[in-house]
Amino acid sequence: MSERLVLAAKERDDADPLADRRAGFVLDDVVYLDGNSLGALPAAVPGRVEDVVRRQWGELRIRSWDESGWWTAPERIGDRIAPLVGAAAGQIVVGDSTSVNVFKALVGAVRLVDDGRDEILVDATTFPTDGYIAGSAARLTGRTLRPVTPDEVPAALSERTAAVLLNHVDYRTGRLHDLPSLTAAVRAAGAVAVWDLCHSAGALPVGLDEHGVDLAVGCTYKYLNGGPGSPAYLYVRQGLQDRFDSPLPGWNSHTEPFGMREEYAPVAGARRGRVGTPDILSMLALEAALDVWDGVRVEDVREKSLALTDFFLECVAAYVPAGRVESLTPVRHEERGSQVALRCADAAEVMDRLVGRGVVGDFRSPDVLRFGFTPLYVGFADVERAARLLAEELR
Amino acid sequence: MSERLVLAAKERDDADPLADRRAGFVLDDVVYLDGNSLGALPAAVPGRVEDVVRRQWGELRIRSWDESGWWTAPERIGDRIAPLVGAAAGQIVVGDSTSVNVFKALVGAVRLVDDGRDEILVDATTFPTDGYIAGSAARLTGRTLRPVTPDEVPAALSERTAAVLLNHVDYRTGRLHDLPSLTAAVRAAGAVAVWDLCHSAGALPVGLDEHGVDLAVGCTYKYLNGGPGSPAYLYVRQGLQDRFDSPLPGWNSHTEPFGMREEYAPVAGARRGRVGTPDILSMLALEAALDVWDGVRVEDVREKSLALTDFFLECVAAYVPAGRVESLTPVRHEERGSQVALRCADAAEVMDRLVGRGVVGDFRSPDVLRFGFTPLYVGFADVERAARLLAEELR
Repeated sequence: MSERLVLAAKERDDADPLADRRAGFVLDDVVYLDGNSLGALPAAVPGRVEDVVRRQWGELRIRSWDESGWWTAPERIGDRIAPLVGAAAGQIVVGDSTSVNVFKALVGAVRLVDDGRDEILVDATTFPTDGYIAGSAARLTGRTLRPVTPDEVPAALSERTAAVLLNHVDYRTGRLHDLPSLTAAVRAAGAVAVWDLCHSAGALPVGLDEHGVDLAVGCTYKYLNGGPGSPAYLYVRQGLQDRFDSPLPGWNSHTEPFGMREEYAPVAGARRGRVGTPDILSMLALEAALDVWDGVRVEDVREKSLALTDFFLECVAAYVPAGRVESLTPVRHEERGSQVALRCADAAEVMDRLVGRGVVGDFRSPDVLRFGFTPLYVGFADVERAARLLAEELR
Repeated sequence: MSERLVLAAKERDDADPLADRRAGFVLDDVVYLDGNSLGALPAAVPGRVEDVVRRQWGELRIRSWDESGWWTAPERIGDRIAPLVGAAAGQIVVGDSTSVNVFKALVGAVRLVDDGRDEILVDATTFPTDGYIAGSAARLTGRTLRPVTPDEVPAALSERTAAVLLNHVDYRTGRLHDLPSLTAAVRAAGAVAVWDLCHSAGALPVGLDEHGVDLAVGCTYKYLNGGPGSPAYLYVRQGLQDRFDSPLPGWNSHTEPFGMREEYAPVAGARRGRVGTPDILSMLALEAALDVWDGVRVEDVREKSLALTDFFLECVAAYVPAGRVESLTPVRHEERGSQVALRCADAAEVMDRLVGRGVVGDFRSPDVLRFGFTPLYVGFADVERAARLLAEELR
């Protein structure tokens, strides 16, 4: 143990303006560095879910579609997420899985450009479901899928490019890609970018409106703490909504959903991204989970996130024998998400042992120790302890 | 009030082998005839959901994907639904909305036949989302959508037919279509039938395996009581699973989902119908809801369902002035689902008043009073009371 690092941790925790947010979560002695896989339980959720089940469903039953606001939940909760990703209200709708939303967004993107544009570029380093779904979108729209790395995107863009699917933060290395410049490059080439925000929303500023993003998707169970498999969301920029042509035009996106019309007529606005009946239990659990963001500035979250990952790297450097692990984490802040990835050959076993000692990160195949830092509930003393126990397991 | 009908109701309730099932639900004095829109709350659900939220998510967190069986829930719960629709285990997977599953099934169906088959037939009387999604499936696969009524299907089948999307029970009239003969006709024409079981599963025997159905989908929040917007399911006949080619090939359907491979390789079996991360809160609420089926024979449910709708029609005939409503409900049992539809010009206002008096059915545009009969919790005294109060409101 390093007295200096322990003291530094205490000083930072004492000065942390977000320190009080931890009380908004159900946590124990575990150092939970896996919020980028499944966020911890916000304290407001159990009571809200109980009310949804016992009163809204159990007592009001069908009346809750109106009286408990079930019907409008996808847009209402979308508007709660909007400020966290730099979006004005009316552009985000919650529902379905991330994969399904990637499909909606990519097919929708291709339909925004000329038929002559015959290529979809996809980040080859991305979480694989994005590539699989992009392959399906390409096949169904008669386009060719071309895997590239984000660095290669600018050079790969051409008059053949229809759409580009990009991850804001790489799930494995934690590398943050340059959303403003890549969005601008894609737009300048006449194509449409689709951003996957799974590993950035809730951890750092995204600035969807500011940077002119057209389409984006994200999950809500990582830094947004919505619960296991909680519904994902779709952002369609306001100016594009009238032209957004969903490949999943379910009755919830009809201009008159209870008119039971034979002809499909898409509603205006964010609701156009809806498909079928919204999944109310999970959706309202998410709504309760978002209460922890009241009064939080994403800029403060980002500042703490970088301080946490910096400090973790500092502690690892101090505690872990040189050469035992290799950091995949970008050194430059502007290239770093809210996680640290360390590579070592025995990563799977090391992580198992570390979890057994109360420090929960995760293993990503084939050789990566992944640690996620959720600024709302991870503190600096947690970080020092995690690095120290990691070092013990690595010796 | 008719003494004869009140007495008949009491006799039938006393003799009802399913009468004890009502105790498995949270119900009050309301006569709830809207279980075909949102099933009542099963008593086992609140406690189970609380455990999932507080312990599985709150305490075990990420460990629950293995330790609490989250990962395998879609197939496990599919196997709980299977006997209710006459399917052997290993053919049903739970997840996503009905609309999304219709899309998977229809595109999958088209991909099972030759490219030369260029038509998709869709039940024009169906719940509209099926038609909208079928339109999208047709557009994306280069097929033509041809709306027909179920009666017209046999004559409309030809060597051009790729797939046929049919409802087992019509959502509006409650008409039960002849699944065995229509399935056989579609198959004989070399096409693939996709059945939507939303209004039949849990109310009557479906016999998927017995009748050689290839693909089917259904929701779980009606007669299966899974809760508002609970996840839907997809049935792919075992013999077809290796050829099932999903248009939504998310990472959950990969043979090695945590291998994070760049190339998509679909897993064998029902899991191939999965897409993204399963929605655990809603899914495990559904699992708890299915406990009410333990020891229940679907044949007994069907027998009671027909007795309930017969008795309701008898009471309506006795209480309601002749000519005030027109029944859209098929008279023949083999054409009747588990609901009664009555048409009258002022249906919307009548239903509003009836709900105010504690009899909950629903209104379906433009002029239909719809009453659903869930045999697990609706009794004959409920039926007599509902018809009596309806008659009072119609006078």
